[in-house]
Amino acid sequence: MAQRININADMGEGYGHYQIGNDAEILKIVQSVNVACGLHAGDATVMRDVCLQAQANGVSIGAHPGFNDIWGFGRRHIRMSATDLEYLVAYQIAALIGMANYAGAKVTHVKPHGALNNMAAVDADYALAIGRAIKTVDPTLYYLALSGSQMEKAALALDLPLAREAFIDRLYDDEGNLLTRTHPQAVIKEPAVAAERVVRMVLDGEILSVNGKKMPTAFDSLCVHGDEPTAIAVAAACRDALRDAGVELVTLPELMKA
Amino acid sequence: MAQRININADMGEGYGHYQIGNDAEILKIVQSVNVACGLHAGDATVMRDVCLQAQANGVSIGAHPGFNDIWGFGRRHIRMSATDLEYLVAYQIAALIGMANYAGAKVTHVKPHGALNNMAAVDADYALAIGRAIKTVDPTLYYLALSGSQMEKAALALDLPLAREAFIDRLYDDEGNLLTRTHPQAVIKEPAVAAERVVRMVLDGEILSVNGKKMPTAFDSLCVHGDEPTAIAVAAACRDALRDAGVELVTLPELMKA
Amino acid sequence: MAQRININADMGEGYGHYQIGNDAEILKIVQSVNVACGLHAGDATVMRDVCLQAQANGVSIGAHPGFNDIWGFGRRHIRMSATDLEYLVAYQIAALIGMANYAGAKVTHVKPHGALNNMAAVDADYALAIGRAIKTVDPTLYYLALSGSQMEKAALALDLPLAREAFIDRLYDDEGNLLTRTHPQAVIKEPAVAAERVVRMVLDGEILSVNGKKMPTAFDSLCVHGDEPTAIAVAAACRDALRDAGVELVTLPELMKA
Amino acid sequence: MAQRININADMGEGYGHYQIGNDAEILKIVQSVNVACGLHAGDATVMRDVCLQAQANGVSIGAHPGFNDIWGFGRRHIRMSATDLEYLVAYQIAALIGMANYAGAKVTHVKPHGALNNMAAVDADYALAIGRAIKTVDPTLYYLALSGSQMEKAALALDLPLAREAFIDRLYDDEGNLLTRTHPQAVIKEPAVAAERVVRMVLDGEILSVNGKKMPTAFDSLCVHGDEPTAIAVAAACRDALRDAGVELVTLPELMKA
Repeated sequence: MAQRININADMGEGYGHYQIGNDAEILKIVQSVNVACGLHAGDATVMRDVCLQAQANGVSIGAHPGFNDIWGFGRRHIRMSATDLEYLVAYQIAALIGMANYAGAKVTHVKPHGALNNMAAVDADYALAIGRAIKTVDPTLYYLALSGSQMEKAALALDLPLAREAFIDRLYDDEGNLLTRTHPQAVIKEPAVAAERVVRMVLDGEILSVNGKKMPTAFDSLCVHGDEPTAIAVAAACRDALRDAGVELVTLPELMKA
Repeated sequence: MAQRININADMGEGYGHYQIGNDAEILKIVQSVNVACGLHAGDATVMRDVCLQAQANGVSIGAHPGFNDIWGFGRRHIRMSATDLEYLVAYQIAALIGMANYAGAKVTHVKPHGALNNMAAVDADYALAIGRAIKTVDPTLYYLALSGSQMEKAALALDLPLAREAFIDRLYDDEGNLLTRTHPQAVIKEPAVAAERVVRMVLDGEILSVNGKKMPTAFDSLCVHGDEPTAIAVAAACRDALRDAGVELVTLPELMKA
Repeated sequence: MAQRININADMGEGYGHYQIGNDAEILKIVQSVNVACGLHAGDATVMRDVCLQAQANGVSIGAHPGFNDIWGFGRRHIRMSATDLEYLVAYQIAALIGMANYAGAKVTHVKPHGALNNMAAVDADYALAIGRAIKTVDPTLYYLALSGSQMEKAALALDLPLAREAFIDRLYDDEGNLLTRTHPQAVIKEPAVAAERVVRMVLDGEILSVNGKKMPTAFDSLCVHGDEPTAIAVAAACRDALRDAGVELVTLPELMKA
Repeated sequence: MAQRININADMGEGYGHYQIGNDAEILKIVQSVNVACGLHAGDATVMRDVCLQAQANGVSIGAHPGFNDIWGFGRRHIRMSATDLEYLVAYQIAALIGMANYAGAKVTHVKPHGALNNMAAVDADYALAIGRAIKTVDPTLYYLALSGSQMEKAALALDLPLAREAFIDRLYDDEGNLLTRTHPQAVIKEPAVAAERVVRMVLDGEILSVNGKKMPTAFDSLCVHGDEPTAIAVAAACRDALRDAGVELVTLPELMKA
């Protein structure tokens, strides 16, 4: 039986008059998108547009909640109470669910954004808060969590549908954590390097650290980015290499229900 | 058969560290609340709290969308495209629907806030935009519209459930429009005056203008405010007078489904 | 004696992670810039950067206050009290004056942004509020006002330094008002058309309406935009045509002090 | 010669329609106020009003910059680049300097707010960023810094005027740090306890830790709060006890210039 995998990326990060990202290009590569929900980026108009585009391209839709911090684009680490955070996340998921009606579409997963994703990966309180938000708003949504993170643990503890994520265009340290963006090797910018690497990840089920350490890792979805100058080329090369290796690319709910 | 009516008020207008209003007092008077949805006032934490309180008090919950303008508290008149407005309203309704899950509650109506309510009362484009937002997010929600306004027309044109509203503590001109807040007689501050007046409104089905003109008006819900120093006393007197006159006070969905 | 004129444009309209505009290109064309002050666009980091760039290019700096409306980019018409507006404008001017210290630069004029500029052109209360803000924060700043507008009247009434503005890339109606942006001919997109036109404007001291009506108009500064796809080409053609016609292009304070 | 000291408190923390705090009461107790500058609390209208009130009461005015986080009231710890923080602080100081013109008043000190104050007390990068902002906008302003903190070190390193602060209504640990607000004894709520304590602090020049440890500490200004139910009574008792002990209460610039 052919191997299957999902590729996801962030979309819909404009705000009012401000536009950002390469949504049209991203849509050609991914099978699932994480849609900003209006508090760190995105707005109601953008959310509706992205849902329509995703639906038209057969791409599944996830909520991409972040801190309420437009200026910081959700990339500033913010300390707040876990309950306030939970409600903030619930609010964003709920808002996207409503906007998806414009496309006759369903929201099927939740993936935290930026600093919130980074913090929840290692902070059990934050990870659980996000999980409780999902559980309250719609307990059928997949919690798309960095493989091996506190978010994965939270999804299991809360008995939520879990989808595990790995990164295509980012390097890991020997503990399986992502190198911070300020690390000179954090972002993989060579399409050929990323493509060769991703095929091995998928076929072997393991991640290679910056030091060459092999880490067996279970993952369902591969995250790509659209915001580096090299990102689209890297992501497209990965998609092509996976297809050439016989890997089928499917939406997150298709993959998980199989 | 006994006459029935609904009383509604705004609630949940705090924001972060800021508190405002008399939510606990309001809950003793009304059968339906309009809950701010985070863009002109309110936040996810407040929304959850208000839904829990409303549910605990047997009070029905409505969304109270406004302009995205925290500083202006949704009271500044803002000109924007009707489509952007529509999505902004849809976003807010959807967010509240999700937060109501925390209380196991349903959102059952939508009433625009402040400047948006004033503008949509006379502007068909705005009134229809709000109606389309309701229709997309949940077409079973009542559009709670000022009786005789463009919003009433929009609800009818869009075939939406309609509930018509009249004001207890505000005076009307001879055309049936509310006097602006800056008019010296705009707000009725005497509990006895308001109480005597509201009973006649409900029993006779007509509104009395500032000049004494009788205007036959159909309405389902009476709006009271909590933010004037005299408002709670006025609202409580109206509630008592209605009960004394044998009028039954019920939630909006109870009233409309009868 | 050679004729002299000033060209101004908006700059520094990014916000946090969001970038917008062609600041580097604009700086090659203008002698004065209007810098967004953080409430409708711009932020402290952007303001500092723009001041440094302007100073390095010998370009004079003006404050570009707008409504407190990041989402709307200051383009939504907002009704608010004239006193609140006055303080909002004063706040923005003051903030830029402080940030200009990073460049060892002085702020020398104030020009309202977007919807505020449009509203203040015809609304005496808004025009005077802006003038009072200037007078309070620094009464030596030029009030850069659309020629013939209520802002010009306000500057005169308040005895403020006045610089009058005309538009290069926008068409006027027969009353001397700008056509709204939604008018098909509102924006002049042909460099040659704009260039021929601006030379006549400057040499003859008159503006030509969309219907060909000649309107003698006094102006000190010509406004260009950077945000249309054709804008930079139009602006550059105007600059070149003016120089070819022997017109000297100077900063606003240089022009006014002569 | 009589001993002299300064008492400071935060003021002007309303925002738009939202009011908070006991500004009128605080003004009877303090000789210096720290005025919120519009990014975590406060707005242009509030800033002007507070400057007028302070000036009318002979109270000196300081800027109270915080994180750009209205929802969090500046109390959420936020990680951001030190240069962005520097410009954010400079922006706020500059804005207040301009608004103080409405009162014909001068801003004479800067004290960071909430989470920024807490973080800068222990983080040299943040402390220096604030210092550089002061130095750029107006190097004559006093950096009002928690005694013994990184802010004190930053002021000395940057050769800025320094005023050291101690807290009247908060308890310290044995290292001289404030107990966090969540500690049960963090806030002193008994007026008599605080009053007896503050007189000893001022006369003996030392702070008493929660464990009774005496820590000789140099300080110029005593901080009181207005936002606890007991705060005004505590602050008033301290003021009275100091006066009774013959300590003269003066504005910060009066004290420092002596």
